[in-house]
Amino acid sequence: MNKIEHIGIAVNDMAASVALYEKLLNTAVYKTETVESEQVQTAFLQSGPNKIELLEALSPDSAIAKFLEKKGEGIHHVAFEVDDIIAEMARLKSEGFILLSDEPKPGADNKMVCFVHPKTAGGVLVELVQGRS
Amino acid sequence: MNKIEHIGIAVNDMAASVALYEKLLNTAVYKTETVESEQVQTAFLQSGPNKIELLEALSPDSAIAKFLEKKGEGIHHVAFEVDDIIAEMARLKSEGFILLSDEPKPGADNKMVCFVHPKTAGGVLVELVQGRS
Repeated sequence: MNKIEHIGIAVNDMAASVALYEKLLNTAVYKTETVESEQVQTAFLQSGPNKIELLEALSPDSAIAKFLEKKGEGIHHVAFEVDDIIAEMARLKSEGFILLSDEPKPGADNKMVCFVHPKTAGGVLVELVQGRS
Repeated sequence: MNKIEHIGIAVNDMAASVALYEKLLNTAVYKTETVESEQVQTAFLQSGPNKIELLEALSPDSAIAKFLEKKGEGIHHVAFEVDDIIAEMARLKSEGFILLSDEPKPGADNKMVCFVHPKTAGGVLVELVQGRS
């Protein structure tokens, strides 16, 4: 895995959180994007080679809404960049990790993504991301 | 802030977690360190420009023990690298963030560190780290 591509942070109020994280990280949000399939609104801030992805739920059914209800605002997942997501998914499966999808799915920020079940990854929701060429 | 220096992950059983994260990240732990002042055992794995810090409590009084009791295993904090921690602490204070110490403290991995109170940072425990020269 090449680097931490981003960390995802669940937020209740995107406008308030954008203002907060812009002050905290001393940088402006450079992109916002709606991911309809996940029912989330996202906003991205850059920190050198890494990104911070703010995630707001667009419906009570979204995974972010459920996370916020259970745990409140905070770090939701960590995403690692990989060169070949198919190969990495196969490697992780062979090591006993459970993946949340059999195939990579389109994610935010023009990436192909796959999540690893946190029950098999020490309570951490891990995302694999590969740039889409 | 230059980059995500590391993410800190609270674990119950260091030996089991080292085995798990070495498989997950496909890389070996390159350093372990005891931080007596925080009553934690740490282990570091590299992911390109970023690090993963596993944190095990050495006493029931450590912040990690309390986190594990309340929330279970998972991501405990995110640390950002800064060039000048004193200047960054002053900037954050002036922006209304509450810092957990008035002065930088020695942390793991030969760094000077300071934490930002999660209540002022969207539920996220943020650490500032500066390399000690």
